[in-house]
Amino acid sequence: MINYWDDLQAIRRKRPLVHHLMNYVVMNDAANVTLAVGASPIMAHAREEVEELAAKADVLYINIGTLDDRWVESFILAGKAASRNNVPVLLDPVGAGATRFRTETVLRILDEVEVGVLKGNGGEMMALAGVAGMIKGVDSLGEASPEIAERLAREYGVTAVITGPRDYVSDGKRVAIVSNGTPMLQYITGSGCMVGSVIASFMAVNRDFLIASVEGLVTFEIAAEKAERKSSGPASLKVNLIDELYNMKPSDYEMARVELRG
Amino acid sequence: MINYWDDLQAIRRKRPLVHHLMNYVVMNDAANVTLAVGASPIMAHAREEVEELAAKADVLYINIGTLDDRWVESFILAGKAASRNNVPVLLDPVGAGATRFRTETVLRILDEVEVGVLKGNGGEMMALAGVAGMIKGVDSLGEASPEIAERLAREYGVTAVITGPRDYVSDGKRVAIVSNGTPMLQYITGSGCMVGSVIASFMAVNRDFLIASVEGLVTFEIAAEKAERKSSGPASLKVNLIDELYNMKPSDYEMARVELRG
Amino acid sequence: MINYWDDLQAIRRKRPLVHHLMNYVVMNDAANVTLAVGASPIMAHAREEVEELAAKADVLYINIGTLDDRWVESFILAGKAASRNNVPVLLDPVGAGATRFRTETVLRILDEVEVGVLKGNGGEMMALAGVAGMIKGVDSLGEASPEIAERLAREYGVTAVITGPRDYVSDGKRVAIVSNGTPMLQYITGSGCMVGSVIASFMAVNRDFLIASVEGLVTFEIAAEKAERKSSGPASLKVNLIDELYNMKPSDYEMARVELRG
Repeated sequence: MINYWDDLQAIRRKRPLVHHLMNYVVMNDAANVTLAVGASPIMAHAREEVEELAAKADVLYINIGTLDDRWVESFILAGKAASRNNVPVLLDPVGAGATRFRTETVLRILDEVEVGVLKGNGGEMMALAGVAGMIKGVDSLGEASPEIAERLAREYGVTAVITGPRDYVSDGKRVAIVSNGTPMLQYITGSGCMVGSVIASFMAVNRDFLIASVEGLVTFEIAAEKAERKSSGPASLKVNLIDELYNMKPSDYEMARVELRG
Repeated sequence: MINYWDDLQAIRRKRPLVHHLMNYVVMNDAANVTLAVGASPIMAHAREEVEELAAKADVLYINIGTLDDRWVESFILAGKAASRNNVPVLLDPVGAGATRFRTETVLRILDEVEVGVLKGNGGEMMALAGVAGMIKGVDSLGEASPEIAERLAREYGVTAVITGPRDYVSDGKRVAIVSNGTPMLQYITGSGCMVGSVIASFMAVNRDFLIASVEGLVTFEIAAEKAERKSSGPASLKVNLIDELYNMKPSDYEMARVELRG
Repeated sequence: MINYWDDLQAIRRKRPLVHHLMNYVVMNDAANVTLAVGASPIMAHAREEVEELAAKADVLYINIGTLDDRWVESFILAGKAASRNNVPVLLDPVGAGATRFRTETVLRILDEVEVGVLKGNGGEMMALAGVAGMIKGVDSLGEASPEIAERLAREYGVTAVITGPRDYVSDGKRVAIVSNGTPMLQYITGSGCMVGSVIASFMAVNRDFLIASVEGLVTFEIAAEKAERKSSGPASLKVNLIDELYNMKPSDYEMARVELRG
């Protein structure tokens, strides 16, 4: 039993501060999505202040999308400050596997920061699984699957979330499969980053991160399904999606398509 | 008597150049809002060019939202160039009080730059009033009020604009209270930054900054009220708001709710 | 005969990787426009990875809009890596002529990088033509014209695209004039940058860059014309424009207004 609505109401009551180190492309959308679910976003990345902010945030969301050397320094500073203060951390390893710089940055964060949720798309997460199991080579990996999520969860001591047509979530023991959403989301840049903001908001009110991840995925994807009916393309879908997040009703969660195992 | 429409028409005739040092989150929206009221935005922050641009701009808008050490250097360079060339400056102290880095940056700009309008939300402006009157402690401050605006105006030699459900504007002698707008604006990230772009545009055509600030607030907030009637949430509100700014008519200003004192 | 539809379908089949070094203001819109025509955008600018990405991209789009010294370094690194690997380069010289820093940066890129398409508005392109022909002075230049495009094409060895009410395209031998579009596009910040993303997408499937440029201009501007009928201002126009790009049909290209000479 997942209490989607209760936890969404808890976000709206608590208005948790979600400190984003978010890529430039999606900063605006991520902030608006966070506001729409009732949380309070702050986008800040300067080394002069990230520790101070991360320490008092309710959740820290590190998204490496448009990283450079200065941002990497801030990822580490903010992440360590969060870890020292028991602030949960969500890490989005955007483009892991696409360049060495990204893969190395992700591995460094996973090594130096207490990451609660690691959320990426199939390609990114399989690249990280490949790195983790490098001695087996990459060929054996195949398609994204609940097993990859499980393996990543154990390897890195995180809750792993692999987004896609089906989303796979695992904390190393349990597995959840979420089948909501719509293919048109792929035509909105950063839709995966935005869902991260929703998951982060739920992490502020539910420390069972597997459940918080499912709540975030389901909330975002049901809003997308409702939005798509009113939309004529990806740009109107984005507008309607944020409106729908703002207007969620308890009955909307009847649309949830979730399978929980373990 | 405030000549809203005449001054809006003056913006559209003159197409003033509004040089923004704007945070990353709101750059796009601020540029679009500036265009919608008829002014010409330029977003540029490199130390190699900010002096050259600020010197020939009609207004300089410094918004510290996503500052770092390099941006701070540019705030000062651009601000001083504007001051030397009698270019009016609007300062938005985003997050003042939230971190030391922000508070110190704002105080440094207020010290080194000739700021015409200082515009922030209640929390930011009360933090700055607290710093200004530190010897009295912070507890005595209470809620934002016309008196805080008046005090900030005198303390820093600016026109102070405190945005909120009611906006308080003061130049240290006169006070204006603006009661337009809608609560849903709080769910649009950077709505306060966007109103800054509209105030800045009016500053280019009206050097009575108290009046220019009221004109900017009223124009933006009436557009928001009209937009809200057509909107089903904060994302459609933002789209409709920019469209309404573009479509302002003289009769729209009959909706203005402004109290002028002094 | 220009095969708009065939080439648009080729983009959708191939899903070319369009590496953007795009200004902060338009990053989000440019990525969404690129997705809407069926290509795959990546926004990345760190010196640690731009060479690796540009080398394997299908097209590199350098837009100098919000440049600073670090971005300039990345423009050069990415541009040279593209040149070494026969990856076509589109350069948008945003603000050329407005500051020395911009003009010098553009000239440096044109000197050190193999630029395929140089696309700017009238002011920018005339500034560059003025620099190229400095000994003749600037006064002789007059209005943007097919002749300026032709001259720039020869001077810099590029396909030159001058956007405006009429767009002028030349590769130094042929000239094309595109008369689609709507004046309201001027009220969308970065509409010129967005059209660059569409041209870049066509460059990935058609190495005749004059034709690819015309295809990009026509596709974007027809989508704008269709969008305008449904829009009540510039913000809804932007939403509808991206939706229309996503929904292009073969018959839409009957609206093309193109004159080809030479």
